[in-house]
Amino acid sequence: MENFILENPTRLVFGRNTIETVGSEIGAKGCRNLLLVAGGGSIRSNGVYERATASLASAGIQWGELWGVQPNPTLDKALEGVAEARKRKVDGVLAIGGGSAIDTAKAIAAGVFLEDLWQAYEETVKIECALPVFVILTLSATGSEMNHFAVLTHQTERKKWGLGSRFFYPTVSIVDPSAQLSLPWEQTRNGAIDAMSHVMEFYFSARDQETALALDESLLRSIVVATDRLQQQPQDYASRANLAWAATLALNGVSGATMVGDFMTHGLEHTVSAFYPQVAHGAGLGVIHPAWIEYMEPTYPATFARWARNVWDADSVKEGTARMRSCLQRWGAATRLRELGVDREQIPAMAASIPPSRRKTKLKEMALADLEAILNLSW
Amino acid sequence: MENFILENPTRLVFGRNTIETVGSEIGAKGCRNLLLVAGGGSIRSNGVYERATASLASAGIQWGELWGVQPNPTLDKALEGVAEARKRKVDGVLAIGGGSAIDTAKAIAAGVFLEDLWQAYEETVKIECALPVFVILTLSATGSEMNHFAVLTHQTERKKWGLGSRFFYPTVSIVDPSAQLSLPWEQTRNGAIDAMSHVMEFYFSARDQETALALDESLLRSIVVATDRLQQQPQDYASRANLAWAATLALNGVSGATMVGDFMTHGLEHTVSAFYPQVAHGAGLGVIHPAWIEYMEPTYPATFARWARNVWDADSVKEGTARMRSCLQRWGAATRLRELGVDREQIPAMAASIPPSRRKTKLKEMALADLEAILNLSW
Repeated sequence: MENFILENPTRLVFGRNTIETVGSEIGAKGCRNLLLVAGGGSIRSNGVYERATASLASAGIQWGELWGVQPNPTLDKALEGVAEARKRKVDGVLAIGGGSAIDTAKAIAAGVFLEDLWQAYEETVKIECALPVFVILTLSATGSEMNHFAVLTHQTERKKWGLGSRFFYPTVSIVDPSAQLSLPWEQTRNGAIDAMSHVMEFYFSARDQETALALDESLLRSIVVATDRLQQQPQDYASRANLAWAATLALNGVSGATMVGDFMTHGLEHTVSAFYPQVAHGAGLGVIHPAWIEYMEPTYPATFARWARNVWDADSVKEGTARMRSCLQRWGAATRLRELGVDREQIPAMAASIPPSRRKTKLKEMALADLEAILNLSW
Repeated sequence: MENFILENPTRLVFGRNTIETVGSEIGAKGCRNLLLVAGGGSIRSNGVYERATASLASAGIQWGELWGVQPNPTLDKALEGVAEARKRKVDGVLAIGGGSAIDTAKAIAAGVFLEDLWQAYEETVKIECALPVFVILTLSATGSEMNHFAVLTHQTERKKWGLGSRFFYPTVSIVDPSAQLSLPWEQTRNGAIDAMSHVMEFYFSARDQETALALDESLLRSIVVATDRLQQQPQDYASRANLAWAATLALNGVSGATMVGDFMTHGLEHTVSAFYPQVAHGAGLGVIHPAWIEYMEPTYPATFARWARNVWDADSVKEGTARMRSCLQRWGAATRLRELGVDREQIPAMAASIPPSRRKTKLKEMALADLEAILNLSW
């Protein structure tokens, strides 16, 4: 049982028709001139952009726009946003999108005050301030709407680093599950896998944390129930909302309280998608996490057995990972790295690209051979 | 599925030896002159008072002391604290204790700015500001350490009202489960029942909220597991911590998100203990909640049946309430109002003392006859 501090300043506004409150929510925080950060344009076709900007305009808020944030968001795009934010002298950044747009917005919000943004991700410079970040979430997955993490990829260096800063908590996050009714299945599913993976990164580091273990099991089971329903009925509001709420809880401090967390699976996935940018984060996690579980079971068998029993009704960890992979297959997701186009010969280079400082986890100080073994099991 | 806003500014500092941080935590918020609010002196015998005041002193913080807060805390004691806080010109209030000390501290923190504190509880005056409230929790039960509620009893009017105000969120709450290792069994048990009741007040108002229902079931089961263990091993730190964390989650906005909540059981219990101040809040709730469940089952049978199945492994609501009462009996708690010394002839007067404005709940607009029927079932 670990000591912890829970302090999450984000104001979460959750439910139907909450996008229409974005202008008044941001206005109440005193911001008048935003940089709006978005992806490839789906928010234009599903009406979210129009609803949001109408609300901003009626609240007298001005904004510029940065489009084209991609999955596995890049340093280059963030720097483009920093330049635009400086030019426009904005007083806040509004992400409309999923984790990529949010994490880019967080990087921009801090980056306007930094000479070299990437140094912060290399942890050689500390973030001391940032513009307020606002969010309209359109894809439940990363939990970034209510936490202090942001992931960024340096393409030429093939590095994908996650960074935590208390200045990365969004000031207000709007989660309107109806904005997700038109999501493609693959994005819904990959988001669900990402959320499950967040819960599991904490879960397996627990021993006597009965309350937290039971809570996390409830989140994992709920995510499977909601995702199964959405595969059949993508327009089901309740399932969208249940998945969205579980994904937020998965990484807003609640699922991980009393635990340290491990996050080696995320570290391995970040390396895979730094080498293979076409690999979606959730898809990579779905492949690596069962392999990590099989490899790590001996570190504390009781919690691994409990996971198999209480999440998958399985009598052993082997059966539990088999059921997890069946679930992924039912959802049409990959279960092996080779299905994602990863070349087995790249495994040593991928493992070696994780520096020793990022290999010490709660459960084990990982040697290069451990990382290679898990990637080989995943392959 | 209800819309909701989750915004909880309390900084929760949880774990072993966290009491020793109270001076630095409060100092970091700029407070230098406190009113310390406490109960009957158990914090002197278990060392909590000494650990806390040593930390305050070493941080250069001054304080005055208000002792003698009782269970079912009274307006009179709060007004005594208001006078003391004004005289000392304090800049913060520190509760060391359980819900009674915390709720008294909250009332004092608002009361220094009000002409007539009770008007706020009658909801004829709105709280517009309050001193910062700090907490060292010594009894997990009410969740008041991380929420915006405070309950106060007007003894001469025999009224016990709960009040919510955003100024009632503690600024910092310290939950050191080791401070609860020496708690008497009855207090541990009554606290556990209170926490279960908070979860259930929300739970039964849910329909398609799969994530929240599953999460709440995990909390209810965890509370039973931890409390059973503490009945055998009161010094077990992990079980103290698991119960404490579940009790905080039960009423800090997490267990109730996506739901409206009902809270008629709390309304009925407040009336019982306003008439019979010797009735501990948790003991009263344990008696009334199963009766309320039996009476309210027809309002939405599916959720009630789910509760019986997923919390108590029971095939019917009748069997579920029977198992809940068995659990209470195993813990040595009352299951009927008559065991608590309540005179059946007082039931009509108790029911009538709940004004119509406090009878409209999520599940049903309660008539006087409904309230009397539930109290009779409880008797």
